[in-house]
Amino acid sequence: MKPGSVLIVGAGLAGSLLAVYLARAGWRVEVVERRGDPRARRHIAGRSINLAISARGIKALERAGLWQDIAKDAVRMGGRMIHPTAGAPHYHPYSSDPTLAINSVSRSALNLALLDAAAAEPNVTLSFDERCTGVDFSAPAATFVNDATGATRTARADLVVGTDGAYSAVRAAMQRNERFDYSQDFLGHGYKELVIPPVASGPHAPFAMEPNALHIWPRGESMMIALPNPDGSFTCTLFWRHDGEGSSFAAIRTGADALAHFRTAYPDAVPLMPTLAADFDRNPVGTMVTVRCAPWSRGAVTLLGDAAHAIVPFYGQGANASFEDCEALVDALAAKPSIGEALCAYEGARVANANAIADMAKYNFIEMRDLAGRPAWQRRKKVEHLLHRIAPVRFTPLYDLVSFSTVPYTEAKARGAATARAVSRVIGVAVSLAVALVVVAALFATGAVP
Amino acid sequence: MKPGSVLIVGAGLAGSLLAVYLARAGWRVEVVERRGDPRARRHIAGRSINLAISARGIKALERAGLWQDIAKDAVRMGGRMIHPTAGAPHYHPYSSDPTLAINSVSRSALNLALLDAAAAEPNVTLSFDERCTGVDFSAPAATFVNDATGATRTARADLVVGTDGAYSAVRAAMQRNERFDYSQDFLGHGYKELVIPPVASGPHAPFAMEPNALHIWPRGESMMIALPNPDGSFTCTLFWRHDGEGSSFAAIRTGADALAHFRTAYPDAVPLMPTLAADFDRNPVGTMVTVRCAPWSRGAVTLLGDAAHAIVPFYGQGANASFEDCEALVDALAAKPSIGEALCAYEGARVANANAIADMAKYNFIEMRDLAGRPAWQRRKKVEHLLHRIAPVRFTPLYDLVSFSTVPYTEAKARGAATARAVSRVIGVAVSLAVALVVVAALFATGAVP
Repeated sequence: MKPGSVLIVGAGLAGSLLAVYLARAGWRVEVVERRGDPRARRHIAGRSINLAISARGIKALERAGLWQDIAKDAVRMGGRMIHPTAGAPHYHPYSSDPTLAINSVSRSALNLALLDAAAAEPNVTLSFDERCTGVDFSAPAATFVNDATGATRTARADLVVGTDGAYSAVRAAMQRNERFDYSQDFLGHGYKELVIPPVASGPHAPFAMEPNALHIWPRGESMMIALPNPDGSFTCTLFWRHDGEGSSFAAIRTGADALAHFRTAYPDAVPLMPTLAADFDRNPVGTMVTVRCAPWSRGAVTLLGDAAHAIVPFYGQGANASFEDCEALVDALAAKPSIGEALCAYEGARVANANAIADMAKYNFIEMRDLAGRPAWQRRKKVEHLLHRIAPVRFTPLYDLVSFSTVPYTEAKARGAATARAVSRVIGVAVSLAVALVVVAALFATGAVP
Repeated sequence: MKPGSVLIVGAGLAGSLLAVYLARAGWRVEVVERRGDPRARRHIAGRSINLAISARGIKALERAGLWQDIAKDAVRMGGRMIHPTAGAPHYHPYSSDPTLAINSVSRSALNLALLDAAAAEPNVTLSFDERCTGVDFSAPAATFVNDATGATRTARADLVVGTDGAYSAVRAAMQRNERFDYSQDFLGHGYKELVIPPVASGPHAPFAMEPNALHIWPRGESMMIALPNPDGSFTCTLFWRHDGEGSSFAAIRTGADALAHFRTAYPDAVPLMPTLAADFDRNPVGTMVTVRCAPWSRGAVTLLGDAAHAIVPFYGQGANASFEDCEALVDALAAKPSIGEALCAYEGARVANANAIADMAKYNFIEMRDLAGRPAWQRRKKVEHLLHRIAPVRFTPLYDLVSFSTVPYTEAKARGAATARAVSRVIGVAVSLAVALVVVAALFATGAVP
């Protein structure tokens, strides 16, 4: 269709990239953000788990010509470094192809880069400190209030896109209408960010540990992870249950108690975390929510990114999936003759995929905190990678499909499950052969077979 | 605990009965309702499917001393009258005990009776035309606006209960907090109310059909039902899909088209519905939603009835379940030393049961619109009733447990499933025996056995 005007509510990762895409496609773009302008301070506030940008995100950022710059400050992570309670950490590559890696990126730096790119487009207007208070679905239009000045205004456009995150105001307005299916489902686990600072010396200095890995301390019901930053530090995230006994934020409330608990549960991390107790006391406990809704669009108003499908962070796909949404929406707007048909095509391309990655992200938490610590899982991964080397297309592991390909998430889920079944069969056959060999050997050894 | 003050948001069925209970238990009760005072006009507006009050609702209303009066205007329904497309309707009793029946009651009349009972209590204050705009969970308190005058006020109490229905404002305020799980799930079917007026003559006059039955026209994907009213009329409700071809509100939009469709799909009803086309044109299409959330309470604010667990109407249990909530809440408040402990006990008693009846209500739609029209289902019901007569406690059909007992819904669901498995086994054995008999008879007949 011919480009018109678009109002984007929310200047986070998705809103900023969408603004760049649509401006370059000829749309007049107005972006309105609830928070203040972060560009002066060069930092965006707010709790955040480090991002892991992989194939889908790279493709979308390359399309905007932004990946090369962002990659300069990214740290490649080629595999998981598993830290057991006792003994040395051991490394498990993400793929049988050692050149493949996911990329640890600062959410704040990425958002600033995207905002700068949006602001550089002549047909983009950015406003900050304006909170969306309502949506008129027939206009379409959205109303905003500046909480500091009390000023209110209404902005109209041909198309309104809510990219205002997991607690979206645009979606809340949709929810007041009938026939809008919606669910928000909080994880029983919360998270707290901690830090491993850079070191002056050591084999990986300035990094205190291997920099090119995502570090995991799997502890069954809970875990800690650490992602490298370009300054040599690691951002650690502790995932514990909110309530209950043992490793929970209800049971362990102070930095001093946390430090004592770390000495037995995460002993190798303690010497690397000199500010552990203070960080634990200072940093808040975050919550994690899965949001699903349908339909995403009402009239010429639609949702995109976390506003449409907030997911838990355990597959590192939240930002990647949102960037894919941006591509799908601009492609649909270019291909279809009207906004209505474009939004229909956009939803058709994305809803099932958003549900698929939501499911996989929840499942991957179990894999990270529990299975990854088990020898049986580690053996399975080796068989999976072996099969992938033998028949790269037929047997592609789920992780490769999600992180190192851009096949739709639904297809990744189905093909990954088929590969997992093949792995089970191979292991079954191998075990049977081993048993047969032992029996034959025993028969020879006892002289039963002359 | 010692009674204190309670603010009840919403003067529908649940809010009014709760006000009666709590006032009599010594609480100072303030009830605030969004709509106008219906007592002057003696009628409550709003779309509504007739209520079917059964054992749970009767128990709760008897506890307030109100059932005897309400029963005078109720019409007993002892079973389903199934109307096939061709041929005469046939009757299937709800229970093997012919004295058991559910009761068709006007929602408006029941609500008025409950409001009158609440107003008659000296320690109850009722206000109308005040819409809840926010909740302060720490006070606790709720704010209200009168949309006609613009006046706003805040009401405080020791306990705040949201009984403001499926689109609850109290629940919406809770939803803005973290760690509140919530889902709203709309049925693909909508509903429209129609009417069969009283008749001057005939075998059931003033009723046009058998009055002591719930009439069902099962048509697979869709259905119509009719419930008797004391004036001799029937309230009919048409359940069609919102969208798609065939019997849908999208495909059949006018009264004239509906009348033509009725002539082939509901032929025996057409002569009884002289205002069908006009009613179809005038009455709106309603939506049906299942709402689940957890936790129901935050501080000393809690949810009750549809606000906590809106369900679809196909088991006739919405009002019955809400009345059970009222009993559970007053019992918990009487038994526990604090509001916090009482709300915890109330939720513990009700959440799983609310989820169980939500599931059963969704399933019963399939039973009513599709299975009830099949001979196999009708035979199963007969075997189920036979087993129940042989071993009344061990083999209680699900319908009896839900509608004619007050065992918790979760237990009803489990025991009903066990009875259904027993029915399947009995039918399996009977078929095997029949086959064996035929074989033996054949062997004798052919002389193979001398």
